[in-house]
Amino acid sequence: MEMTAKESLERLFGGKGVAILGASAKKGKPGNSIIENIRDAGFIGSVYPISITSDSILGFQCCKSLEEISDRIDLVVMVLPADDCVEAAKAIARRKDEKGDISAVVVVSAGFSELGTEEGRSREKALLEALVSRGIRVVGPNCLGVIDTYSGINTNFDIGAYRKGGLSILTQSGAFAVSFLKWAQPGNLVGLNKFVSLGNMSDVNVIDLLRYLADDERTQVIALYLEGTKEGRALIEAAAEVSRKKPVVALKAGKTRIGSIAAASHTGSIAGSFEMYQGVFRQAGVVLASSVIEFYHTAAAFEKMPLPRGNAICVLTVLGGPGTLCVDELISSGAVELARLSEETKSRLRKILIPAANIGKPEGFIDTTPSFSEEQHRDVLKIVLQDPGVSGVIYLTTPPAFMDEEALADNIIAAYKSFPREERKPLLSVIGFGYSVPRLRNRMEEAGMPTIEYPDIAAKVMINMVRYSQYKSRFE
Amino acid sequence: MEMTAKESLERLFGGKGVAILGASAKKGKPGNSIIENIRDAGFIGSVYPISITSDSILGFQCCKSLEEISDRIDLVVMVLPADDCVEAAKAIARRKDEKGDISAVVVVSAGFSELGTEEGRSREKALLEALVSRGIRVVGPNCLGVIDTYSGINTNFDIGAYRKGGLSILTQSGAFAVSFLKWAQPGNLVGLNKFVSLGNMSDVNVIDLLRYLADDERTQVIALYLEGTKEGRALIEAAAEVSRKKPVVALKAGKTRIGSIAAASHTGSIAGSFEMYQGVFRQAGVVLASSVIEFYHTAAAFEKMPLPRGNAICVLTVLGGPGTLCVDELISSGAVELARLSEETKSRLRKILIPAANIGKPEGFIDTTPSFSEEQHRDVLKIVLQDPGVSGVIYLTTPPAFMDEEALADNIIAAYKSFPREERKPLLSVIGFGYSVPRLRNRMEEAGMPTIEYPDIAAKVMINMVRYSQYKSRFE
Repeated sequence: MEMTAKESLERLFGGKGVAILGASAKKGKPGNSIIENIRDAGFIGSVYPISITSDSILGFQCCKSLEEISDRIDLVVMVLPADDCVEAAKAIARRKDEKGDISAVVVVSAGFSELGTEEGRSREKALLEALVSRGIRVVGPNCLGVIDTYSGINTNFDIGAYRKGGLSILTQSGAFAVSFLKWAQPGNLVGLNKFVSLGNMSDVNVIDLLRYLADDERTQVIALYLEGTKEGRALIEAAAEVSRKKPVVALKAGKTRIGSIAAASHTGSIAGSFEMYQGVFRQAGVVLASSVIEFYHTAAAFEKMPLPRGNAICVLTVLGGPGTLCVDELISSGAVELARLSEETKSRLRKILIPAANIGKPEGFIDTTPSFSEEQHRDVLKIVLQDPGVSGVIYLTTPPAFMDEEALADNIIAAYKSFPREERKPLLSVIGFGYSVPRLRNRMEEAGMPTIEYPDIAAKVMINMVRYSQYKSRFE
Repeated sequence: MEMTAKESLERLFGGKGVAILGASAKKGKPGNSIIENIRDAGFIGSVYPISITSDSILGFQCCKSLEEISDRIDLVVMVLPADDCVEAAKAIARRKDEKGDISAVVVVSAGFSELGTEEGRSREKALLEALVSRGIRVVGPNCLGVIDTYSGINTNFDIGAYRKGGLSILTQSGAFAVSFLKWAQPGNLVGLNKFVSLGNMSDVNVIDLLRYLADDERTQVIALYLEGTKEGRALIEAAAEVSRKKPVVALKAGKTRIGSIAAASHTGSIAGSFEMYQGVFRQAGVVLASSVIEFYHTAAAFEKMPLPRGNAICVLTVLGGPGTLCVDELISSGAVELARLSEETKSRLRKILIPAANIGKPEGFIDTTPSFSEEQHRDVLKIVLQDPGVSGVIYLTTPPAFMDEEALADNIIAAYKSFPREERKPLLSVIGFGYSVPRLRNRMEEAGMPTIEYPDIAAKVMINMVRYSQYKSRFE
């Protein structure tokens, strides 16, 4: 049976059966955590821990070897000592020759070309030869493998069950992507679809997966952490194609020569400044973030919010100073304008707000002052979102001592969801108090409303959304 | 009795007695919250709520008017409707004429020149004339007033009891500074000394307070949020003098013309780009932050850590990718170098770390890989801090699933505190998992070890510390 590239990558996310080489009964060992995570995520296929010492692990019956398994295996996860990996690969190849079932192998084990030694390189070469010659796709080695929150596959021993969503992550640093997901978890800031830690990229590479995720319906946005690649030009071409369909948000490490040595990616990396990268990526429609926090929040916003249909942004704030910082950042980008509010909008706002409120100085800026009720929050937000001259809103708010966090959240959510889905505009809420108002933040994030702690970062995220929307519209 | 400028500003932080005009028995009202906050902070002087309707508020006996109070009053807080403020100011002036005691007034009330109306301006003028003519200093109007965590004064109705420390905040936006303090609270990220929300700056201005805080022993770092001032040149001169003694970390809002309209500070603001400001401020030794998060963490780091005595930084990481991002940011600044580790340091590290660890590629970068124990964390950190070629360390770590958060924290703290105080170097810890490891983070912050969620922000903070240290050393 010959498979298309898409079909074999599909199997990477578990297929009907997954075998774990290096399964362990000992809690805390990677070969145990992976099985625990697969169990907790409710993997839809069969799970076969391979162990010569245990009869069952975490409720799954063990097999002594791959040959023992009579049912179909699509994916094998390798969590073995480096020395045992080549033999294991040969056993996988033999089974493939006999039964034809295994499509993909995730090699979590380290001790390959990343060591920079001849031994490591030749071990990786032998591993690859055994598998790729049979048409088996290999992720890694030296990686955290894959997660698919919908199929329930999870070869990552650091991340357990995770909130489902539309974000897919491709990463050349497993640790970086794990940090992203852990960082987001207490605030429910992102919902995950697929995760691939690429490791040494011996076979499956970032281009393969970008193209795969472009056609993956559940993926709404791709977050890409990039260190280096030998195929810079091909990568940019692929990214440009993918960006016509959905946003690719990228972070590039190893931009400086010295940084690229730290990334051990100096052989293949495109050298250059952030500005150089930004030029190349922007032309390809890729959103290149200038900081880690901008990367995180831009990916999160694309996952939750619709694209703006213009570049006219309204800054609606309860707080003077933070509102000003937001305006500064928006304006200095040159990419967006403050929205021209209609006379009707202004007069409706004047009826609700106190005389000390600032409506439209400058144009598109509204400072309500903090003194109004939850319901007024809702009404003001609705009026602003309704204005046809507004393409998106940054809303800076804070619950005063006398206001209930959840009541405030519910009113913001009600205002937003009062519009039918196709009429919704991007709304980014700046919650400067951050984790000191966890109930406000969680309530909003659970309802799909992105929250950001910093007004200038919210501005950068909105700018990224506007720029991407402009790129995409050129192909519609 | 004639007082020096310093003495009268001293009284601003409560002195021996504070009277509250506009005291309220109703929970949630600003005139009630202020009394609650003063009580909770344990104000060292006497508290006199002025009320014609209540006999006592929150345990403090009320007086019907200022005249009734026979003991000394140093500070009066005004939380009245705008219309009543001028009469109240005249009553304060009368008492000053008779008893000579009141030195300072904090006018929390809004409804003055910030309205942009003739009525507002003339009200502010009348208020000021009554008080300043008697040598009484006025903070505000339209402000959140003052906090001193040591004297226990607190006229800010949004911030209750707060962790004591060495950070003092001067702000032209009360809401911005409140956001900073609230943001920092769940992680214990800063310890506060004094807080002044300047409001309309009708009398006491940012220059007065910068000079005051320069000589205030408990203030280790001044965080300054600036919108606009008519005295730009004088401000820079004052800041340059203060910076010879202690760091001033600044954030400038209203940098764009449109942003300055939002700040309603366009009359007096120095117009110009971030780069223009940065040049002027840097020459004065002021650390101008380029983002809100950089501002927060730079202020927090100066509060807790000693200055670096050189520009040779070591990046010690458990995580490859985030370590690379940190190196990129450090190097591209041009202000710091990666440290040259001694041969002794390298050979000691090789004995502890696994062969796959990266020691010194590039020079000054150590990637330990995640596989080692809490005690190894401690030993490695000690060895690196001991190297005389290292001026400061950025330490990127994460607790793997098998490691206890607090045990990890305790080992990091033990390594740092094994050095006598005068030999300590700045150590910034990047905890990328953020609030998903609250026990690690809190334990470290309580011990005075700054934690930062983002590797690139940690780099920016270290760069700021190096630059400031270089400025300061020119005057030693």
